[in-house]
Parts: sequence; structure tokens; C-alpha cells
Amino acid sequence: MGTYRPLLAVTMGDPTGAGPEIVVKALAMPEIRDMCRGLVIGDAAAMQAAAEIVNIPMEINTVASPDEMQNGKRILNVLDLKNVDMATLVRGRVDARAGKAAYEAIEKGTLLTIERKTDAIVTAPLNKDALNQAGYHFPGHTQILAHLCGVEDAVMMLTADALRIVHVSTHVALRDACDQVTKERVLRVMQLGEAAVRMMGIAEPRIVVPGLNPHSGEGGLFGDEEAKAIIPAIEEAQSLGINVRGPLPPDTAFLRAYRGEFDLVIAMYHDQGHIPIKMVGFEKGVNTTLGLPIIRTSVDHGTVFGKAGKGTADPTSMVEAIKLASVMCRTLKQAG
Amino acid sequence: MGTYRPLLAVTMGDPTGAGPEIVVKALAMPEIRDMCRGLVIGDAAAMQAAAEIVNIPMEINTVASPDEMQNGKRILNVLDLKNVDMATLVRGRVDARAGKAAYEAIEKGTLLTIERKTDAIVTAPLNKDALNQAGYHFPGHTQILAHLCGVEDAVMMLTADALRIVHVSTHVALRDACDQVTKERVLRVMQLGEAAVRMMGIAEPRIVVPGLNPHSGEGGLFGDEEAKAIIPAIEEAQSLGINVRGPLPPDTAFLRAYRGEFDLVIAMYHDQGHIPIKMVGFEKGVNTTLGLPIIRTSVDHGTVFGKAGKGTADPTSMVEAIKLASVMCRTLKQAG
Repeated sequence: MGTYRPLLAVTMGDPTGAGPEIVVKALAMPEIRDMCRGLVIGDAAAMQAAAEIVNIPMEINTVASPDEMQNGKRILNVLDLKNVDMATLVRGRVDARAGKAAYEAIEKGTLLTIERKTDAIVTAPLNKDALNQAGYHFPGHTQILAHLCGVEDAVMMLTADALRIVHVSTHVALRDACDQVTKERVLRVMQLGEAAVRMMGIAEPRIVVPGLNPHSGEGGLFGDEEAKAIIPAIEEAQSLGINVRGPLPPDTAFLRAYRGEFDLVIAMYHDQGHIPIKMVGFEKGVNTTLGLPIIRTSVDHGTVFGKAGKGTADPTSMVEAIKLASVMCRTLKQAG
Repeated sequence: MGTYRPLLAVTMGDPTGAGPEIVVKALAMPEIRDMCRGLVIGDAAAMQAAAEIVNIPMEINTVASPDEMQNGKRILNVLDLKNVDMATLVRGRVDARAGKAAYEAIEKGTLLTIERKTDAIVTAPLNKDALNQAGYHFPGHTQILAHLCGVEDAVMMLTADALRIVHVSTHVALRDACDQVTKERVLRVMQLGEAAVRMMGIAEPRIVVPGLNPHSGEGGLFGDEEAKAIIPAIEEAQSLGINVRGPLPPDTAFLRAYRGEFDLVIAMYHDQGHIPIKMVGFEKGVNTTLGLPIIRTSVDHGTVFGKAGKGTADPTSMVEAIKLASVMCRTLKQAG
């Protein structure tokens, strides 16, 4: 297993943003090359330009399928979709053609992974407006992936170092998020989260569930979702052998996990999970989609339009996304 | 002004907890003694015992009123309520008698401050169960203070270093918190918060307002509280000359404030503010109550029962609470 290097489909992202640049930076790192084989899904000329911008000399090896990949520390393998003309695009400016190219890269990478020609997909940032202008009406990456995989309810996980958070709901109004806190949903998110944490290398995940309400409602004094949904979900999970505690007061549950007491937090709504992880892990955050038939990780930031074309965008989140996907592929392979 | 040292009423807190110990530790510090004069409100014998526990030799000067205070680096001035017998209490155990003694200290300290015999009140931790058993039915410190001052809607502010957060609501169910996001309430909390930040020494506070919904509702896509309440409040505040921006996505608004871009965040509900500040400032947090006719700061933690009697409790939050009250008194005095 020491030499197993999973094959990752790494999408280029929106080519008017800094995605192609952070992809080159990440895939050129010896640490990353030792860990996996990266196949860029995108436009070969755009990737060539990105390599020049970040000043990392790379030979682009254009392939039509993964079996044509070459190995070499200065070789960047690109499955060339030939779908963008950088000479006609302006970096940092929303463009429907860039949105279309970005979408096609995700589509191709997802299909390759569904067909097991690649082991996982790692995605670079999109611009939602460009996607919309190209006719792809999705709230974001997660929903595109779910659509392409034919899945109804994908679950969003954010990780930064040892802080791991899954979300009961994401892009809904806070009032609707309260409605989505049901026993069934909390339990499902917990089970998906636990399985993912195991794939991330934690054999016996310790899970914590915060309440929905402040102080977890203080025994029913304010709010009843703890009694109606959260505690029943915890009890059922415990009866299934899951190591889970809660509901704990939300304002200390995330801190206690961050300090090492728990491996996974089940956030009851988008900002309950997003606010704490961004406070402590903004640059190194990774977004993982659970509930898909494939392994998918992503950077946890946007297109960084302000740095596009300058070669200065920070690749840390992409590096962490690639590492995490590699670890998950490795665990899956070891499990047979 | 260089020698102005405000006179602070410092309550003992619940005597079965570590409150008396952190009060002694804080008031013995040269840095604190240079900044203010502390008058402990509580039981002299309990404070004597606390000084012995933390191994800081102090001479207890028992006073009946502030004008009997003495100055000296080893003198601890205590307004002796003679209301507790430590020989009959067990540290770390909830006791109605301790709850009663703690309540009486707050009552006395508040009255002294309302009468301007002390310049501010700084409070040590309470135990809510002990208070309840003693017949004082309040959700917490803030409501006791509001009651004693005859105020209906006190506002909770949490600070840790340069991160300052005021809350539109606190101890209500999350669904009810959504209802409390009204233009009037957001504006009032913003105005109280701005005035407090000025008292804390920031001449021109830069304020940020996060949305209630994820991504601030993304232009009405999920949730309408931004359009109905938050944006109108921001616009009215701006017309009143307040330097405020928003609504910004909640998951980056707190981070941007923490990194120095803003001096104050208006949290739309309890956990929106409590989660981020505890992630980055757990030990040094200070709780300040706004909307009272007096200056009041407090530790931002509980009674630390596990360390009571051991002399090991961390006084940092108490030290920061005393410093903050001192700064506020000084600004008020300078303003005339």
C-alpha cells in the first residue's frame, strides 16, 4: 500500500479565476506527487498559460483518457476538453464561456469517476454567475455533483485540520433550516458523516451533536427541537453503536471539537458550522460532498478573481483537498 | 487623568465556585491596582479563605462603605455582607445559601453603582441552580442587572481582544430569534453597541452587520429578513452617521472583524455571536451589559466548580473584565 497513488480527476475551475494557477501549484508539489496522480480535467492551453503565470515550468501532456498519462515531476497531465480560448477571455471578469468550460470539466471528471476510470474528483472554484449565464442553474458545486450522480440530498462536510463538520441543511432560510431538523435527517447526516470520518483515517470517530437552540434550549425552556428530533436521533445512533454525545450547547461544542475532544460535529444549519470553521481554518478549509457514489473534495473558496493572472493565489485549500481525497481513496482501497 | 483610578464594585460570585479565588488573583495584580481601585462586594471571611487558597497573602480591610477603603498593595478592601459561613458549605456543590449570598452581592454592588458610590460593577460567576434554589428566578446575570436597574431590554455584548459582538437576541428559541430581527431592534442594538465601543476607546467605530440567513439570503433567494429588517436598519443607521456595512455573509463577517476590518459585529442571534467568539477567545472573553444606567462587565464563564478550592482557576477573564470596565469609566470621565 505504501506505493499506492490514487488517480484523481482535478478540475480546472473557472478559467477566468485563479483555479488553473492553484491547480498547477498544487500538482507540482513533490509531497502531492508522492501521494497521488493528478489528471487535470480542462483546457490544455489554459493550463499551459497558468503554468507560465505561476512560473513553474511544466510540460503539458495532453491525453484523451487516463491510460495515456505519463509520470514525471515536470509533466502535467491534462485531459484536454479544448473548450476555451484564453485569448478572448479577461481574467477576473465573469464570462458565460468560462462558466460553460468549467461546467464541462466537472461533468467529465464526475463521469470518469463514476466509471471508476479515476478514483476521486477534486474541484477548483467556480463562479456562480458565469455558470448561470451559461445556462447552468445550480446554487453551487454540490448540487451539480448531486445532479450528475442522480442523488437527491448530498450532504456538505467542511474540514480544517482535525475540525470536521457536516451540515443538516445548507442553502435554505434559517426558519426553513429549523424545519429540516428532523430525527431522520439528523441521523442520516450523522451516519454519512461517521462513514466519511472513518474514510479519513479515524477508526473510531467521536461525534458531538450541538443543539439547534442556544444552550441546546436549556431543557425545553426555549425551543423543543432538541426533545423532538435531536435527542431521539442521538439515542437511535447510540443504539446503532455510534459513539455520539449531545446535545451540547452550540457555543462550546465546536470549540471542544476544535480542541480535540471530538472528531466530528453535526451542525444543525449552514452558519452554525460555517462560522466556526472559517474562524479557525479559513485558508486550509476543504469541502467534501457526502452521499454521492464517488469521492469528491473541493477547495473551500471562490475564484479569487482579484489574484487571477498574478500567480499569487494561495494553493493551500487545493493542496488540502487533494490530500484528503488521497487519504479517502487509500482507506477505501485498504478496506478492499 | 493619568492618575484617575475608577472605583469598581467587584462581586465575589457564588462562594462555592472559584469566583472568590479569581477575584483575589486579579485584584492582587500590580497592573490592575495601577488601573483601578477594587472593592469586593461579598463575605470577608470567604475572601480571606480564597486568599489563603490561592496563596496570596492579603490583609482584608472590612469596610461598611467605599470611603473607608485603604490603599496598599497587600490590602484587599471588602464590603462585608457577612452572609455566608464557608464552614458549612462544600466547594463545587450547588447550595441555596451560596446562591443567596451571590445574589445579595450583585444587589449591593448594583445599588452602590446606581448611587454613584462606585463607578462600575464587575461580576464574578454565578450558579443558576443555586440562584433558583434560593428563590431568585432569572435566566442569568444580565436579567438580574436589568431587573435591579428597572430596565426592560438589556443587550449582551461579548468581547475578546478586538473582536466585539452585540446580540439582537439571546436566550430565546432560534425560531423566535428570527422573529426578533426587526428594523427597530437591529437599529437599537447597533446604536447601543456603537456607544459602548466608543466608551471602549474606539473614536470612530466601524460596524458590520451579518445577515440572518446563510449568505445573507443571497438576494432574497432564501429568507427575506435581510430585505425587510436588516437593510432598512443599516440604511437608517447610515443616515444617522453610523459607519456601518452589511449585510455581509455571516460566515465571513465575524472572520473579517476578527482580522481587524471592523470594530463591532451585530449578531442576529445568540449563537451567531457566541460560537465565533468562543472559538478564538474562550479564556479572555468579557461579557458587558448595554442599555443599563451603569457600567457593568463580567467574566464570560461559569463557576468553574471543578477547580473551586484548588487555587488553579484562570483569572484571565476577570482581569479582562476589570480592565474593560476601567477603560469605560476613564472614557466617560474624560468626556466629562
